[in-house]
Formats: sequence, C-alpha cells, structure tokens
Amino acid sequence: ISNEDHRIYLRLPPSPAEPKGKRPPVLVDGVTLNGPTLDIREAESFLRDAMPIIMEEAVRKATDVKEKVCEWRSPEQLKEVLDLELRDGGEANPKILQRCRDAIRYSVKTGHPRFFNQLYAGLDPYSLVGRFITEALNPSLYTYEVAPVFILTEEAVLKKMIEIIGWTEGGDGLFSPGGSVSNMYAVNVARYQRCPNVKELGLSAMPRLVMFTSEECHYSVAKAAAFLGIGTKNVYVIRSDKRGKMIPAEFEKQVQRAKDEGALPFMVNATAGTTILGAFDPLEEIADICERHSLWMHVDACWGGAALMSNQHRHLLKGIHRADSVAWNPHKMLLAGLQCCAFMVRGQTDILQRCHSANASYLFQQDKFYDISYDTGDKSIQCSRKPDAFKFWLMWKALGTKGLEERVDRALAMARYLAEEIKKREGFRLVMEPEYANVCFWYIPPSLRSTPEGPEFWKRVHVAPVVKERMMKKGSMLVGYQPHGDKVNFFRQIIISPQVSREDMDFLLDEINTLGKDL
Amino acid sequence: ISNEDHRIYLRLPPSPAEPKGKRPPVLVDGVTLNGPTLDIREAESFLRDAMPIIMEEAVRKATDVKEKVCEWRSPEQLKEVLDLELRDGGEANPKILQRCRDAIRYSVKTGHPRFFNQLYAGLDPYSLVGRFITEALNPSLYTYEVAPVFILTEEAVLKKMIEIIGWTEGGDGLFSPGGSVSNMYAVNVARYQRCPNVKELGLSAMPRLVMFTSEECHYSVAKAAAFLGIGTKNVYVIRSDKRGKMIPAEFEKQVQRAKDEGALPFMVNATAGTTILGAFDPLEEIADICERHSLWMHVDACWGGAALMSNQHRHLLKGIHRADSVAWNPHKMLLAGLQCCAFMVRGQTDILQRCHSANASYLFQQDKFYDISYDTGDKSIQCSRKPDAFKFWLMWKALGTKGLEERVDRALAMARYLAEEIKKREGFRLVMEPEYANVCFWYIPPSLRSTPEGPEFWKRVHVAPVVKERMMKKGSMLVGYQPHGDKVNFFRQIIISPQVSREDMDFLLDEINTLGKDL
Repeated sequence: ISNEDHRIYLRLPPSPAEPKGKRPPVLVDGVTLNGPTLDIREAESFLRDAMPIIMEEAVRKATDVKEKVCEWRSPEQLKEVLDLELRDGGEANPKILQRCRDAIRYSVKTGHPRFFNQLYAGLDPYSLVGRFITEALNPSLYTYEVAPVFILTEEAVLKKMIEIIGWTEGGDGLFSPGGSVSNMYAVNVARYQRCPNVKELGLSAMPRLVMFTSEECHYSVAKAAAFLGIGTKNVYVIRSDKRGKMIPAEFEKQVQRAKDEGALPFMVNATAGTTILGAFDPLEEIADICERHSLWMHVDACWGGAALMSNQHRHLLKGIHRADSVAWNPHKMLLAGLQCCAFMVRGQTDILQRCHSANASYLFQQDKFYDISYDTGDKSIQCSRKPDAFKFWLMWKALGTKGLEERVDRALAMARYLAEEIKKREGFRLVMEPEYANVCFWYIPPSLRSTPEGPEFWKRVHVAPVVKERMMKKGSMLVGYQPHGDKVNFFRQIIISPQVSREDMDFLLDEINTLGKDL
Repeated sequence: ISNEDHRIYLRLPPSPAEPKGKRPPVLVDGVTLNGPTLDIREAESFLRDAMPIIMEEAVRKATDVKEKVCEWRSPEQLKEVLDLELRDGGEANPKILQRCRDAIRYSVKTGHPRFFNQLYAGLDPYSLVGRFITEALNPSLYTYEVAPVFILTEEAVLKKMIEIIGWTEGGDGLFSPGGSVSNMYAVNVARYQRCPNVKELGLSAMPRLVMFTSEECHYSVAKAAAFLGIGTKNVYVIRSDKRGKMIPAEFEKQVQRAKDEGALPFMVNATAGTTILGAFDPLEEIADICERHSLWMHVDACWGGAALMSNQHRHLLKGIHRADSVAWNPHKMLLAGLQCCAFMVRGQTDILQRCHSANASYLFQQDKFYDISYDTGDKSIQCSRKPDAFKFWLMWKALGTKGLEERVDRALAMARYLAEEIKKREGFRLVMEPEYANVCFWYIPPSLRSTPEGPEFWKRVHVAPVVKERMMKKGSMLVGYQPHGDKVNFFRQIIISPQVSREDMDFLLDEINTLGKDL
C-alpha cells in the first residue's frame, strides 16, 4: 500500500491548467510525491472481500436465535487468540480478514434475540444502513459547509422529538455522545441560566450550588456533578418510594434544607425510566415544586423517552412538557444504534449557544456566503461530532411514527407477558410489577423452595452470579443482575428488540431453571 | 415489518424444555406476541440492496478525484430535495434507498483527495471495515462481559501509544468522543490530583483555580474551563511567538501573576500542533516550569501527535514524555476515522478510576467470575461508549507502525512541496514556513499585485471568502480560511490523505487562481 506506484500517476488525467504528458517525479525529504500512494481500487477490493464476512458473521449469524449470544473466553485466553500486539510490519489482507472474523466471533452479539443485558438490544436494518453511510462519508457535524445533509437531518429529528415531548413553544437541542453527556449538558445549562457569569468566573466565585435527584437515578448524575465542579455532596439525594419513584414531599424537604443551609438550589434531575426498576418519577408534581422554587427541571428520559412514541404508554411521562430540558436516547428502545442521544431545551432560546460557544474564528467564520445559523457546532462542547441523528431519521422514514409506536407497544406487552409467566412459575418471584420494559425477578432454586423467608433464605437466594457465569460460558443468553438497596442480587430482564418473541421469554425462564436448579 | 408473521414462528425450532408443535398465539394489551416481528431475512435483503449503493456512491465515487468534492445546495434548496419531515406512515424500501442516494449525493466527500478543509481527511479501507464491524455488532465499551474484544483492543492500542509517547513508567488511558472531551478529562484529572476533595465538595469549597494555555490553543480549552466550572477568565492566556509557539518566559510570568493574586495555579495545556498554524509549543521548557511550580502538564497533541510515529519528525514533540497527560486523535492525520481520540495519563496510576468512578452496582458488579479490572467503563465520564480503538487497531495491524510512519512522512513532505511552490508562484504568499501539515498562505489577485503593501493592500487581500464560495459552488475542492490575530483571511491548506498527490497541490494553486483572478 505504501509503495510508490507510478502507473497510478500515469492513469490520472493531467489537470487542465498544466502541460500534457508525463511529469518527472518530485522528491522531497526522501519521499516521492507523484501520484497517490493509496490505490483506491485496491481499497475497494478489500472492502468487497470484507463485506460478505460482516454480513454473514456480524449480521446474519449474530441475529440468529439458533447461534450463541457469546463465545466466552477469559481475558488471558482471548489475548492469545487475538494476537493484539502492534508491530512495525503490516499484515496481508487475508490475515486481516481472518482478524475480522475472529473479532466478530469473540464479540458479544448485542443484536441477538437473546441479548437482554443492557438498555439497548436488537438490530434495525435501516439504522444500520444509515450508520454504514455515515461511517463511509466520515462527516463531522459542526458546520453546514461540511455536513449539510447531517445538519438538516439533525434539525428535523430534533424538531419532531420536541413536538412529541409536547413543547408547543418549540425548543432547541443537539445530539451528544451518550445520555451521561446529555445530563451534563443539563447541569451546565441549568446553572448558566441561574448564574450567567459562571461561564467566565467559575464556581469559586458563586455560592454553593445544590442540585437534586432521586436515589434511583442513573449514576451519570453523580458523574456530572463531579465533572462540572459542583461536587457529589452537593447532589442532594431524594428518597424514592417502593416502586422507585421520587417522593415529591421529600424533594421539597431537600430544597428547603439547601435553602436553610444558605446554598443555592438550581436544578432537579427527574428520571423517566430508571435504570434498574424502570420507574418513572412523578413529573407533574416535580414541576409544581420547581415552579415554586424557581428550579430548572431536567428529565432524564434516556431510557423511558421511547414511551412518548406510544399513545398507550405516554402517560408514564405525564408532565414532561413542563420540563426545561430533556435527555432521550433513541439508541435504547428505539433501536437507532449506539450512539443516538438527544439533549433538548424548551422554548425559543439560544441558551445552548450562549452557554457553550467559544466562537472559534477558523471554523465559525462570520463572513460566509450562506446563513450561518446552520453552523450549529458551537452549541456543543465537542468540536468534531458524529452525525448520530441521521440513522434515526432514516429508520424513522422507513418505519413511520406508527412503526416506532408498534415496537414500543410490543416490547411493553412482552414485559407484561413475562411478568405474568414469572408469577405463574414455581421458583421465580417478581421484585415488583413492571411498568416499563424492566422485569426484575429472583430465581429461587429448588433447594430453597421450602426454606422460610428469613435472612438465611435471602442470603441463599443470591444465586444470580453463578447462573450468569453459566449462561455466559454456554452462550445461550445474556441477562443482567444486581443487588439493589436492601435487596439481594436479582435478574433484570430488559425487553426491546422486535426480533424477540414470547418463545424467547419462555426460554429465558426455562434456561435459568436449567442453569440454576442444582444451586 | 410490523406485521405478525406466524410462518416465522413456525420455522423456529421449539425450545428443548417445551412441548413440540405449534403453540397458540398470545395476545397481551392488544399485541400478538408469538414470533418475531422483525424478519431478519428481509432486513438482510435490504442491507444487500443498500451496500452496492454505499460502495459505489460513498466509497468509490466519493474518493475519485474526477468527481466533485461537494454538490452545493443552500439549506432551503436542500430541505426541499431531502423531504425531511417525519410522518406517521413508513416508506417502502425503494424509496428509502433513493433517500440513501440523495443523502450521499449532497454530502461533502471528506474522503475525496481534494478535501483539505479540516484536520482530518481521506479514507482508509481497514479502518472503514473496522467501523462497519463495530456498527454491525453495536457494542458498548463498559464491561469485559459485553465487549471483550473491544476492551482488549483498546488496551493494546493505548499500551502502544503510551510506549510511543515515551512513558517508560507506563500509563493509563481511554478513548473519548473527541479531542475536546479529552482536554476536559485533562482538566478534571489535573484538578483532582491537586485537590482530591473537589470531586465531593466541588469548586465552591476550593480556592480559585487557574490554568494556563497559549493564545494559539484549540478553543476546546476555553470550553473545558467553562464546562468544568473553572471559568474562562481563570484560563490565563500566554502569548505565543511569531511562529505560534508558547513563550515559556510568558508562561512563568502568568504563573507568578496567579500566585500573586492568591489563586491556585494547577495545570498548563501545551499544544503540539496548533489548529491554524500547526505550531508546536516548546515542551521541554514548559515541563521545566511545571516542575518548578508543581503544575500538571497536559499536552494537546490531538493534531500533532501523529508526528510521534515518524523518526524524522518526532523531534517536534521533544519533551512529551515529561507530560502528565496527553490527548492524541488518530482520526486526524492517521486516518482512523471519526472519532478516534485517546486521552492518556502517565505512570502506574489509578487516577482515572478514582477521579471519575461512580461504582454503579448494576453494571460494575463486584461478584463477577472474571477479573473485573477489565471492566474499564468507570474510568469514563460516559456510560455507553463506542469502541473507537478497534478500527485503529485493525488499520495498524494492516499497515504496521512503518506504514503509519510513511503516511506521516509523506504528508509532511507534501506540505513542504506546497510551501516551495507557493514561494515560486506569483500571486501567492506564505504566512510562514510550515513545520507541520498546515500550509497557510494568501492569494493576491492580479489587480492587487502592483499595489504597495499598506493598509489598503491588506484590506483588499481579504478575498478568501469569495474564492471559497466559488469553489464550493463548483465543487472542485474544499480548503479552509480564517483571519488570525492581526492577519486578514488566509487559506489554511491541510495535507493528510495518502491519496493526495503533488498533482493535487499544483491543482490547488491553479484552481485558486482560476477562481480568484478577477477579484
């Protein structure tokens, strides 16, 4: 690849302004500069060889319920198989193709119908095509000049999401690399709105700022407080009820406590769809409290936002139209593919621009010939930014809003079905009735089924790690578990993919029993 | 796609634990749950139809020097062509394929040999295959459990980059969504090292922290200071010399100023490869000052880090082994594809973990059966994170360190050639001799060539915006421009892609003259 190839130079048409015919090679610093050193036809031929492997191994087999979800190897074993070391010399294409096969083989198949481990799953072909397009085009989303299609598709998607949230007054937004970053945006915008000179003067010149969130919130809220200089101890944690929902009265108590301490309360993070239990904070009551105390109301709907697409389920987020900002990840239940994370603020506002801009003259020139309001990059904390909205736009075009709604309805019906099955089956116990796609349950092995429910029982119910180890080594499925508050390890089954059927739900329970019945 | 397809259910093998034969459909909340609703073979067939379009339009034509770099449309025109609105109903596959063609057609071809507009360019086939693989597999990089291959390839790439930086004592790191975010990591780690209780207590409990950077630094340093609560006014800006390099004596003066004010200086951001001029700050002298004043030394080598791959050019970063942290983006000159951005800290240290961790119990369980030191996600401020190192690893395997070195040497030789051509040609003037891949120059239209160089001359040299408009509308190439300090708009030519030849350099100068000679 790196050899000079003068034949390539000779094939190039001479540029019109120059004399015809061969030109002598030019040597600078020991490098010959005539002609390209990357033969694009060789590159295409490698791509042509690689694509069938990707299609067969990373798409077809990776989504086939008859194949394994994962091919477990320990880190030590896998290091040996992959031969990770980077050396001076390069490797020939057949070797590289084998590396592609290996990388796919030992990767977890997150698009497999029995991958239930995270808050994302499945494979949507439209989104995937959108992703292949943007990877091939390799755009960065800062100016209209270099990313016109992706600037406009981001705008269109945000406009529709804002409409669905119910912000009749409009809104602004951008896609960010993850819900955690979206939540950070919320903290930054909220404190800027309260203390506009924080951007210049910093927090050391401000009173102590305090923010609020429930004990069930995502851990990114603590990370945001640490990263943005607020401090984790200035995140006042509000108790949740048994179902995992923030208790509004407790919220107001904490606001009062902050005020009594002489601190400046500035925002609350309400969660719509908590990570473990899938609980929705009561947004209307939280909005009332925010109004009373002039607090910024942010809703982390990264996981639960999908319910807004469903007429049947959007009541879960009743009151979200009163939020000042919303984070919502279409890469989760809507299958837009990692990453696809919208952060949005309510109203006709330029706060994103004011709060984040640095006005770089080399990128955001003011003397361009087109409307520079389309150069949206300075709203962002990033410089180069991936066009994450495009794949979602393409999928949305293909499925329509109705198609997305049907997917959400089906996933939630499936969760309901699984909960009912769990209640019917011996050896399984629901942690609570699901209201979203998280179904949390314990498996009680036969050896324990006659034990009375005392501390000894609960200590021995802690079998999930062993069952998980066995399922990973077998590769039959992947489902998460965790302890939670005073509850010992339970499984958290997440249902998303439209490729999942009720048969997979039955399989899940059978398989856990198969793997754990001797424990 | 959303229709129930019972044939699919019948094709599924019954799960072993269940009775053979058909099972009756199950209806929950109005949704039939038997069988998947996404037919993966239909999905594959759509992918098979889309791939040739991507290969022809977004790869072959998009990298063909005879094709246009861009197909300019104003935002209003493009909105009409793209039909952006998202509707209730979905669209059939042929329509979606047409949308793919349109999206590609009106996108800027950043892989085209005549795309010189940003600090990235070109297309590497190995990296692209790596990206297609990770998009298809859709992994998230937090735990070994769900991303074993990508955890290990990230580790291997970081290890090698750390070795190349020259940190013989080792180091730690992670890939982040952009150099701007990497610089934010640097600020957070530096202040945590100085004030470990900032994580909990926040900046309002700290003395005023002050950081330093040169006037030529990337704008992300200001964004980091604002976002992390430091405040942009607490970034003390150090004067640079005529070549764009930080003046060490000025740095030390600013440190003294901060101390005299009673503030707490904690870090400097040195730039290795500035955005506009491609200048390298004097790292050895900066390191000496950091030692004297116990400051964290961060090197933003996002752009210039590639020179470390070259024996001929790595002297530009002499002293980088003394840095406490380094940001380096292989998606720039090394063509790893957006985004690929490493942030690294020196030494055997767990500071990334301590500084950023939130210890989420649902993700980073402590009772797993494998070595959980491979669950690296809690080092990050993100939760879901793309496996950006893999594509770089695959490309590195294919080209070898030598192949990467040759690319860097060639790009810099090409920049040297262009600078010499500019000096030879009437109507072009170098802003300064390049020491990296940024070649900055003015175009002097014929009408001005006899004007004496006074204020009137420089006012009229401001022709770059018009030339740029014309080149975009013609689609012949893309090159950036900007004003800078007291200098009026000049072109900034960036040379990266191995597909670029000396003929393209000649074309660049001819074309600017063609487009601007009447001005």
